[in-house]
Amino acid sequence: MDVTPEDVIAAHKRIQDGVHCTPVLCSQRLNAQFGVELYFKCENLQKVGAFKARGALNAVRQLTPAQRHHGVITHSSGNHAQALARAARLSGLNATVVMPSNAPANKKAAVLGYGARVIECEPTLVAREHTTQALMREGQQTLIHPYDDPLVIAGQGTAAWEFIEQCPNLEALIVPVGGGGLMAGTALAVLAARANIAVIGAEPVGAADAHAGFTLGVRQTGLTATTIADGLRGELSPRTFALMQAHVADIYTVSEAAIWQAMGLILNTLKLVVEPSAAVALASLVGRTLPYRRVGIILSGGNVDPTLWSGLSVS
Amino acid sequence: MDVTPEDVIAAHKRIQDGVHCTPVLCSQRLNAQFGVELYFKCENLQKVGAFKARGALNAVRQLTPAQRHHGVITHSSGNHAQALARAARLSGLNATVVMPSNAPANKKAAVLGYGARVIECEPTLVAREHTTQALMREGQQTLIHPYDDPLVIAGQGTAAWEFIEQCPNLEALIVPVGGGGLMAGTALAVLAARANIAVIGAEPVGAADAHAGFTLGVRQTGLTATTIADGLRGELSPRTFALMQAHVADIYTVSEAAIWQAMGLILNTLKLVVEPSAAVALASLVGRTLPYRRVGIILSGGNVDPTLWSGLSVS
Repeated sequence: MDVTPEDVIAAHKRIQDGVHCTPVLCSQRLNAQFGVELYFKCENLQKVGAFKARGALNAVRQLTPAQRHHGVITHSSGNHAQALARAARLSGLNATVVMPSNAPANKKAAVLGYGARVIECEPTLVAREHTTQALMREGQQTLIHPYDDPLVIAGQGTAAWEFIEQCPNLEALIVPVGGGGLMAGTALAVLAARANIAVIGAEPVGAADAHAGFTLGVRQTGLTATTIADGLRGELSPRTFALMQAHVADIYTVSEAAIWQAMGLILNTLKLVVEPSAAVALASLVGRTLPYRRVGIILSGGNVDPTLWSGLSVS
Repeated sequence: MDVTPEDVIAAHKRIQDGVHCTPVLCSQRLNAQFGVELYFKCENLQKVGAFKARGALNAVRQLTPAQRHHGVITHSSGNHAQALARAARLSGLNATVVMPSNAPANKKAAVLGYGARVIECEPTLVAREHTTQALMREGQQTLIHPYDDPLVIAGQGTAAWEFIEQCPNLEALIVPVGGGGLMAGTALAVLAARANIAVIGAEPVGAADAHAGFTLGVRQTGLTATTIADGLRGELSPRTFALMQAHVADIYTVSEAAIWQAMGLILNTLKLVVEPSAAVALASLVGRTLPYRRVGIILSGGNVDPTLWSGLSVS
């Protein structure tokens, strides 16, 4: 593997002055409801509102002087875009973010607020990649991929590394799966800590390429993703797929109804705002009996699309 | 005074194994928006979802054996009811809560969930007090008032005591004011810490008895309260009024629009759920230039009426 458990420990030392050590919360009410002891790592309270601040900072802080001179680039409309823009500003270098023209105005504003340049393109994957390549030919920026990057994966793993320090007796760790960067980093963190913790991925049934690949033993690509959890619509890369096969205990799938229910429980009981993607790990416990007693859940982010509130019915 | 700064320190030692030391959060975005350094003490993440867990536990833990035998009583439909029910259960004694018959079902369920007895009465103050007195004649329970009680005030002050330990250089502390228990306890905590911190109360213009009393030098009673901040509709008692006069630097009033705006900012930026009463302290900064640079805000609670989400428009 090109990313190792030791890389997570090194990333932790490299970025800890630039990210929050986020708190871990518990709720006796949720423990009673689900019949397990739950521990919630609040990455929604992280810088830029998501764990993505970790991986981007870890990658940016390892650039060579020549790379720093040309700056960084990514194509994303999600939390990685803000995370990369912030990491670049902290390190005093330029960032370019290629975004689809139909990206929400608040996401574009957030990236601009961190001082990055935003280049709009047609809302297709082909256009995003084409635009990014054209910019890189001209400006020689370094591409920082949202998840298919060893430095990014090691950085995302620092959330679980902290979590294991904060809660030494966890038996399982459940994390949401989109492209698999958080899941892969979490698995490496568990190895680094030499802990006996089962790492489990959770994803929407409407974007279940990881589950299908896990079950079939073959990476799935090109599936159509339909879910409110917009951060989990991506698919595993060969790198994150291999790490899943090697180190992950199971992949749970969850319904859209369970995602909404979990968001409501987190709002109502933990008093935390989480985005739908972050609710998926708790949603995976709805209607499921776990073979673990002490279960850690990474609440991956809190950047909620403002239009979503009106659809929320919390009871 | 019948409650002293030393009582806050004693309360801190007495209850710290039964409440959370809640985290303090910051947001560079909010700092930029308001032009000050803001520190948010997250009592919405406290047990029962509010600082009220502190005062109730401090009072219950000082009952005599005879008082414990007969249990405790209060009349409240708010967070104090849950806090007292929880404190009684922790201490293994009975609690009775007199609630108006029109109290929200979820609030009643929460109190019952902590094992307390709920007695319903007509939704008038006279009926609540009459019912409570009748129950006390029969059962000899000890009344634990939501704020007009030295032990409760000292307990509420432990939030600020912790806050000052967590953020040693605060110049001002802004807290919401209803009956004045949190404000009085906060002022005593500042005295106990021998800190040079201005204590400021914030209340809705629609329930501004503290502001009027502060300005006129005479406690105001019987004013009509009209505000979404249901936790702040009460009025100061002679005890909390006297503590305000002695130790509080100012009372800020805020509009209903500012309360909604602050709730949205806290949801969107801090990723925290707070009840309207808890948003009032931040709301007091809207359109106001402060003579302080490092400002602490106590986010007093997170128990949001579920019907409120539909009215919320977050931008």
